[in-house]
Formats: sequence, structure tokens, C-alpha cells
Amino acid sequence: MAERDREAPARCCSYHTVQRWFPVLRWLPQYSLGWLQLDLLAGVTVGLTVVPQALAYAEVAGLPVQYGLYSSFMGCFVYCLLGTSKDVTLGPTAIMSLLVSSYAFHDPAYAILLTFLSGCIQLAMGLLHLGFLLDFVSCPVIKGFTSAASVTISFNQVKNILGLHNIPRQFFLQVYHTFQRIGETRAGDALLGLVCLAVLVGLRAMKGHFPRIHRVELLSIRISRLIVWATATARNALVVLFAGLVAYSFQVMGSQPFTLTGETPRGLPPFQLPPFSKAEANSTVPFSEMVQVSAGLAVVPLMGLLETVAIAKAFGMGSWKELAFVPSARSLRTACNGAFGLCSRTAVNAQTGVCTPAGGLITGTLVLLSLAYLTSLFYYIPKAALAAVIICAVAPMFDARIFRTLWRVKRLDLVPLCVTFLLCFWEVQYGIVAGILVSGVLLLYTIARPRIKLSEHGVLLMQPASGLHFPAVESLRDAMHRWALAVSPPRCVILDCTHVSSLDYTVVMGLADLLQEFQKRGVTLTFSGLQGHVLQVLLSADLEGFQHFPSVEEAGK
Amino acid sequence: MAERDREAPARCCSYHTVQRWFPVLRWLPQYSLGWLQLDLLAGVTVGLTVVPQALAYAEVAGLPVQYGLYSSFMGCFVYCLLGTSKDVTLGPTAIMSLLVSSYAFHDPAYAILLTFLSGCIQLAMGLLHLGFLLDFVSCPVIKGFTSAASVTISFNQVKNILGLHNIPRQFFLQVYHTFQRIGETRAGDALLGLVCLAVLVGLRAMKGHFPRIHRVELLSIRISRLIVWATATARNALVVLFAGLVAYSFQVMGSQPFTLTGETPRGLPPFQLPPFSKAEANSTVPFSEMVQVSAGLAVVPLMGLLETVAIAKAFGMGSWKELAFVPSARSLRTACNGAFGLCSRTAVNAQTGVCTPAGGLITGTLVLLSLAYLTSLFYYIPKAALAAVIICAVAPMFDARIFRTLWRVKRLDLVPLCVTFLLCFWEVQYGIVAGILVSGVLLLYTIARPRIKLSEHGVLLMQPASGLHFPAVESLRDAMHRWALAVSPPRCVILDCTHVSSLDYTVVMGLADLLQEFQKRGVTLTFSGLQGHVLQVLLSADLEGFQHFPSVEEAGK
Repeated sequence: MAERDREAPARCCSYHTVQRWFPVLRWLPQYSLGWLQLDLLAGVTVGLTVVPQALAYAEVAGLPVQYGLYSSFMGCFVYCLLGTSKDVTLGPTAIMSLLVSSYAFHDPAYAILLTFLSGCIQLAMGLLHLGFLLDFVSCPVIKGFTSAASVTISFNQVKNILGLHNIPRQFFLQVYHTFQRIGETRAGDALLGLVCLAVLVGLRAMKGHFPRIHRVELLSIRISRLIVWATATARNALVVLFAGLVAYSFQVMGSQPFTLTGETPRGLPPFQLPPFSKAEANSTVPFSEMVQVSAGLAVVPLMGLLETVAIAKAFGMGSWKELAFVPSARSLRTACNGAFGLCSRTAVNAQTGVCTPAGGLITGTLVLLSLAYLTSLFYYIPKAALAAVIICAVAPMFDARIFRTLWRVKRLDLVPLCVTFLLCFWEVQYGIVAGILVSGVLLLYTIARPRIKLSEHGVLLMQPASGLHFPAVESLRDAMHRWALAVSPPRCVILDCTHVSSLDYTVVMGLADLLQEFQKRGVTLTFSGLQGHVLQVLLSADLEGFQHFPSVEEAGK
Repeated sequence: MAERDREAPARCCSYHTVQRWFPVLRWLPQYSLGWLQLDLLAGVTVGLTVVPQALAYAEVAGLPVQYGLYSSFMGCFVYCLLGTSKDVTLGPTAIMSLLVSSYAFHDPAYAILLTFLSGCIQLAMGLLHLGFLLDFVSCPVIKGFTSAASVTISFNQVKNILGLHNIPRQFFLQVYHTFQRIGETRAGDALLGLVCLAVLVGLRAMKGHFPRIHRVELLSIRISRLIVWATATARNALVVLFAGLVAYSFQVMGSQPFTLTGETPRGLPPFQLPPFSKAEANSTVPFSEMVQVSAGLAVVPLMGLLETVAIAKAFGMGSWKELAFVPSARSLRTACNGAFGLCSRTAVNAQTGVCTPAGGLITGTLVLLSLAYLTSLFYYIPKAALAAVIICAVAPMFDARIFRTLWRVKRLDLVPLCVTFLLCFWEVQYGIVAGILVSGVLLLYTIARPRIKLSEHGVLLMQPASGLHFPAVESLRDAMHRWALAVSPPRCVILDCTHVSSLDYTVVMGLADLLQEFQKRGVTLTFSGLQGHVLQVLLSADLEGFQHFPSVEEAGK
């Protein structure tokens, strides 16, 4: 792959290039009936996970449920054409839904505009090769962010399980109001929600401890195991279906103890441009104002990419970059779809043995079919059941062990972790930005204050433990003053640059100043262990009194 | 000094601590009559430089001339108490005046509030130990900034030399309007300005080529040399005095070919708090609005510190940190006075053989005396003469050789230099901020993409040329995939960490993932040359399949 990338300019219009842009061409010509069977199975299974999740995530985003479905099928079709990984399925995620809820104000028009503009910004970032900026999101920040989001989203659903209404969106207010009004709990919602939760947790635990199917076993055992496996995998759909049936029975009997999803329009919305302005009761909201209102534009595109990176890193996928975007031609393609995310869907897809991205086609079709024929049934889905689905989906994102691990491995990294984790409860985006800044400052501090090893070697031997970049000049100068120039009598110094891999002009000037100061005090500053190109830079600067020896031993003589 | 810093906690209330906070106590007890003579001479000489420069810089800042004097004496007195360097004198600088002019709108009220709030922000930065952030201003940025400021300020004065009025402040508009209206040049101003310029340049050249006074020479030669030296040193005062006399003669004769400074109020303004609100013709401008108007608050405090750093670095002063501020107890003190700057004044002070900061007392007194008795004479100072003083003061800041030097030493550093230089013509502050950002991005890119040396050693040997920080993980992973995992058959790798001085959690996780991937492909990833604490971190992380050998030779076996 890497090799091919390097040779690319030589044959930029070849069939291989077309294949690189449209990977569908790689597997379509070899498609077989055997693959179709497996893809079909996987597509249907994933579909059964996707549909209830889509409804649930729409609830998290504060949008009508059908918007969860609208956003679920497009990714499947697009990724089938442009995707390279057979396992990945694209669709809405809990975290993106949480972010959208902050900016969409329960109005789909804003959500659609936000999505469109975020895509444009991601595309621009891809075209400008800014992908390397994503590398500056460190593991502690991601862990802090996902853990906090898990808590926020879970608690956000507690109100649905308890059947409480009009709870504010902000986390702390939500906690306060939920506990204050816990007496208003609706028994029906609470009972149903807890039962759904218990069933989901039980089924997932069953799946986790499920032994592999061996072909040598009896058919009856294999079939029963397959049934258990299918039940556990499609647990979301089953739980939602079961809850819906219960609610329907009550409705038929004339009483309704549950809060229901309510009317859902059938079919697809018209295919059109995003709404750049919006007609309200007695006026039109112009584009400029709509953009102002969606202040999320500074946050959502980046968060989308960050989340993809976060989830992909959390799943330990080698090629997460392809999912987010890379500073290469691929970025154009993947920037479009990278932000949708992948989690339980992708895991299910991999487990059912999907063979090609065509599995996504089946999933997408299933979503479309449910939009066409099932919307009237969605009316009866209790909100408590969807809440249980959401809680089970996001709870595993909370990683309590990370605090202990960091304490053991690298205590300083607890700072960005805690900053991100705590601030995310205030606003997710502030938490992430603060975390990135904190880990950036820690990184810059390391660079600005490199450790300098001191040893006696006849004269004083100073060895920077890492590279010398421009912010480190003052620190080096301070160390020289402290240990060699400010002592009496002043001491000669050998600066061992074994670990220095590059020098910029500021460092060169700093060294020139130091050479002068050493001369003024009548002592010498000698260099040793300079790498070839570093020596080149120093020689080209014509430093007065510059002396270099290949090794410390020779310099010490 | 360094030793003393480290022992400080043990005797935080001793006389030494008081001395560290008030360095005046170090030299005052030993003050002698011999020192007084030299301090007196230096103080008067510096005063003769400071007074005309203060008038000129007030012109640059767009404020009435007396404000230049107001801002000149306070620094002298404060530094006499709190300063440690005998050479330094504090006062207004050309660059700070230029910045103030952008935000003060020719109204002293705004300038005073801006100064006060800038001081507060600098103090806060000092207390929060943010001084190390100043290390991130690289040499190319400083050179680009000072060169551009030199051109801007010089050109800004061309209109005064030509006697043009109502020229806009923005550089490009200024160039356009100056050349468009060059026909309106007033002959008197132009002639006087050019003569003053010529005299100033001539006197400075004389001083530059002035041989040292040897005690063995004849008295007559020594005296004549002293006169020449004094003339050259006090050239600003002489030129302004001469121009003023010429203007006064014309005034007496009834005609006035020059643009004059005009009325200057006598004495000091009342000592009071800065104006937090302002009464206008028929309303009061509240504090909130005044702060909004002085948008410079985000820029001026930082610029003040930056400029001090810039000038101190440009003058190659070893302890510039003391002048700006350092992350230590000293910062509190120096943050108050660091932002005033030092340039020709400081040079003059050093040359006249000043002995203690008491020289500043004399200079300050001279400024106060001129405010008390000379303001009526300032009326006759032609603006063209002040313009000549300014141009001569700032022209040497332009460094044309830097472009060639950088081309030879480090071409990449030309990018921040040119960005800063060019953008500074638009707005000085944008230029600096952009330059810092560009050099920061270049630095971060180096860290995120460390060079990795590849060599054959039976197996593949990969050696990062510098440290591995968290942004470098993806780059390392890519390199491993490209050269070891994506080739067929996959290859074993030795990762030589000789140059790695620290590891953070993100890198550890990345290495854990890589170890897994190598195991999956049936090849090994071995570590060599780990430093003690780096090995500790990796061991504490319990990486699966982690193998370490002290040297590449042993690892390769």
C-alpha cells in the first residue's frame, strides 16, 4: 500500500488509480454467490441493530425519531462505493448526537445545516492536508472525553426511564432536577425501562461468554447456539419490539402507562439542498442568523473527526486514518464519511462474517424499508425502552481503569485526562479543547525544558537528553550559566549533541551567544557527537570559536 | 545565583531575601562619592537622549508630547529601587508607541487605561508562571517583527519630514497617500528634516568610528575627543535644540516655515487612578465600552514582554529574562517594569560608565525638571526634527542580512520570518501572532513526524532520530506498517530507542498496539537501547510480548 502510494504519480490515470478512488471496483468483479449469502446475513443482523439505535440516537440529539433513520442509510450506501474496510458501517453515533443536541435546538433545520456545513469544513481540512493536527489529540484526552460522554448520555436517559418531562439539557441542572423530581417517577416507564435494561445487560453478558461454534458438534447443539447468538446480537431490536408490543396491548386495552414515541412521518423527506434560510411563523430567519445560531460549526466538524479517531483508536483499528482522513488523495473521499462513526454496528458486522462492503447495501435497504413500512408501528415504542438501548450502548465507553493505569504508567498524563473528564460535564466541547490544550502545553513544556545530563569528564560534560528546538535555547543558556559561567572559576564545557537531530536558527544564534560568553570568561565551549547535517548547519553559520570533536573522549583531551 | 535560588526556601525571611526583592539594598550601603560622579555624568547624558526621544515617541503614539515625558521618569525611579542591572534604563520605546497608537485613538484616557490594564495582565502572567511561553517566540519572528516595525515607524515619520497633514495611520494607505500628495511638501519642513537627518547620521557614524581614549595621550587631544564624544552622544538633544532655535528665530521674525509641536502643558498631571470611565461632550463612556474599544488588551501586554525579549535578545544580553519576567519570585517585581523597553538609552548608559542604578534617579530628575521648566520651549520644536530623531533611532532595527543568513543556515526558518515581516505591515500584532503560530506549527510538525532511520541489521532496525511524543505515534505506526508489516513476508523489527528520553501514555498504548499487530503477523518487535526510566515506564505498562535488549547487537542475535 505504502509502496503503491509512492509510485502513484507515474500512473495517475491508470485503472489502479480509479480503483484507489472507488474501491468498489476491487471486489465487485470477483463477487460470488457465497459472499452474497454471508453479506446478506450480516446486513440483516446489522440492520436489526441499526434501526433501534437510530431511533434512540435521534432521541439523544433531541430530534424527531425519523431523523435517526434518515441519517442511517446514506452512510451505508456511500461506504459501499467508497469504503475499503468490509467491517465498517457508518451511521449516527451517541456522541455526535449529544453534540448535535447542543446546537440544533430541537429543530431539524439547524441539524441539517450543521451537518452540511460540518461536511464542507471537514472536506476543506482534508484538501488542506490538516490531518496531522489530529495526532495532537492524545489518548488521555480521548479516554476522558469518551468516559464523560458515556456518563452524560447515560444520565440524560435516566429521565426517560423515570418518565420525567421538561428536564433541562445541561448536565448539572439535569442531575439536580432529576433528583429533585424523582417523586414524579411514572411507575410504568420505570418498570419497563429497568426490565429492558436487565434483559439487554443479560443478553450482552451471554454473548460475551459465548463459546465458539465447532463444526464437529451435534446439529441440535449448533442450532440452539445459533439461536442464542442471534437473540443476543439482535437484542436491541428484540427489546424494542417486545416493549412496543406491550405498549400496543395496553393501548388496545384503553390505558397507557408508558411514554410513547408518538407519530412518525412515513417515507423519505424530499431530496433537496440544506435549508439556508428558514421561514418562521411571521418572518424568515436568514442564513447569516442561522449560521450564528449554530455556534457548533467551530466544534462539530472537529469533534466528528475526533470521535472517529477516538472510536477507531479505542477499537484498536490499525488503519483508523482511512476512516477519519489522511493527508493524501484518500482524504477527499473519506472526509465525506469519516465523521459518522462506528461502534457496536461495526463489531456486529465483523462477527457475522461479512465479506465485502456490500453488507452495507443490505443494512441501508433495511433502514429504508423500515421507513417505508414500519413508521406507523414506531408510534408504540416506549421511550423508556429506547433509553435502555442507549444506556447499554454507551455504558461500556466508561473506562474506570484508565485512572489506575495512568497513575502506574505516567502520572503527568492524569492532568489532561482529569481536565477533559471534568470539563466535559460542563460542555463536551470545552472539555476536549481544554484537554488538547493542556496536553499541548505539557508537550511544549517538555520541549522547552529538555533534561540536560551533567557529568564530570575532566571538564563539565552537558548532554541534552533529547532534541534542541528553539524554545529550549533559554533553558540551555540558563543551565550553562548556572553550572559553568556563574561558578568561580568558570568551567570549560563539552556540549554532547548525540541526541540532537536538528537545529533551527534560534538555537544556532543561542549557541553563538554562548560561545561568545564563554570566550569572554576565558573558558571554552566544545561540541561533540554532532550528527552530519547538524554539523553542516553549525558550520554554515560561521560561529566564532566553534570547535567540534566526533566523540567526548577526543573533546576531553 | 542559581545555587541561591535553590536554597531560598530555607531562609525565606532573611536579609538576603529582602535583598533579592529590593536589589537597591545590595549597592546602597556601599555607595561612594566616586560612584556618584560617574552616575551623575551618565544620568545627565542619558537624560539628554531620553527627553527628545520621549517627545518623539509621543508623536509616534499619536499622543500630546508631554505624555512621552510622563512615561519616561517613572520607570527610572522604579528601576532604581527594584532593578539589578546598572546599565538598564526604562522608558517608552518606538515599538510600544506604535502599538499604543493603534488602540489609543489619539486620546490619552485610552492610552492610560491600556497601560494600566496591560500591567495587570503582565503581573497576572508573572504570578501564574507563564514566562516560559515567551520562549516560543523564535528569532526569525523577532527579526521579522523588528525589521517591519522599523520600516513602518520610519515611513510613518516621512509625512512629518515632508510637512504633510491628515495622512491615515494604516501603512499601505499611508504609503499611497504620502506619494499621492508628495506635491504638497512644505519646503521648510523638508529642508530642516533632511538636515537634521544628515547631522544625526553623521554624528552617529562619527561615534561608531570613535577610537578609545588612552590615558597616555595629550590632554588637549583627550579633551577634544571628549567633546566630540559628548556631541555625538547627546546628538538628539543638540539637533532638537538647534532646530528649536531656528524655529524660534523665524517666529521672532514673524514668519514660520515649519510645523511646530505647539502648546505643551507645564508640570505633572494629578496623581490619580486610571480613568475607568470617561465623560464626553454630552454623555459618559462606561468602563465596559472603554475596554471594548481598547481591543489592544489582548495584544499590548504580550507585545510589551515580547518587545523586551526582542530588544534584550537583539542586544545579546545574557539575563534578558530578568528584564521581561521569569517563572520565579523575581517575576512579580520585573513584570511591573519589564515592558518599557531599553535600547539606545541603555547603550548610552553603559558607555558613560554608569556604576549603579542610581544613574536612573538623575535621568528621572532631568525629565521632571524639563517638565517643570522647559515645556514653554517645547512649543518651538519643529515636528520634522523629532521625525529625524525617530527615524535615526529605529532605522538600525532593520536587518537585511537576516534573509541571506537564514537562506544559508536554515531555509525553513525563512517561512516564519517572511510571514511575520509581511503581515506586520498590515498590523504589527497580526504579524507577530501569525509568526509565532507558523513557527509553532513547524515545531509541532517536526515533533509529530520524527525522522526514523532505517538500517539492515539481520532484521530491520528502526531508530527514531529524536524523542517520541504522543503526536509521533501515528507516524511511527505508519513507518512500521510500510516497512515491516505491509511487505510480504512481514519482517521482524528492532526499535532502537537510544534517542528517546521520555514516553507518555499515548506512545505506550501505540507501542502496545504495534506489539499485538506484530504478534498477529507472526513476527517480533524488539526494543533496544532503552534508557532507565523509559524502560521503567514500559515495564509498568505490562505490555504483552515486550522484549528488551541493552544494545542492538544483543537484540539482533
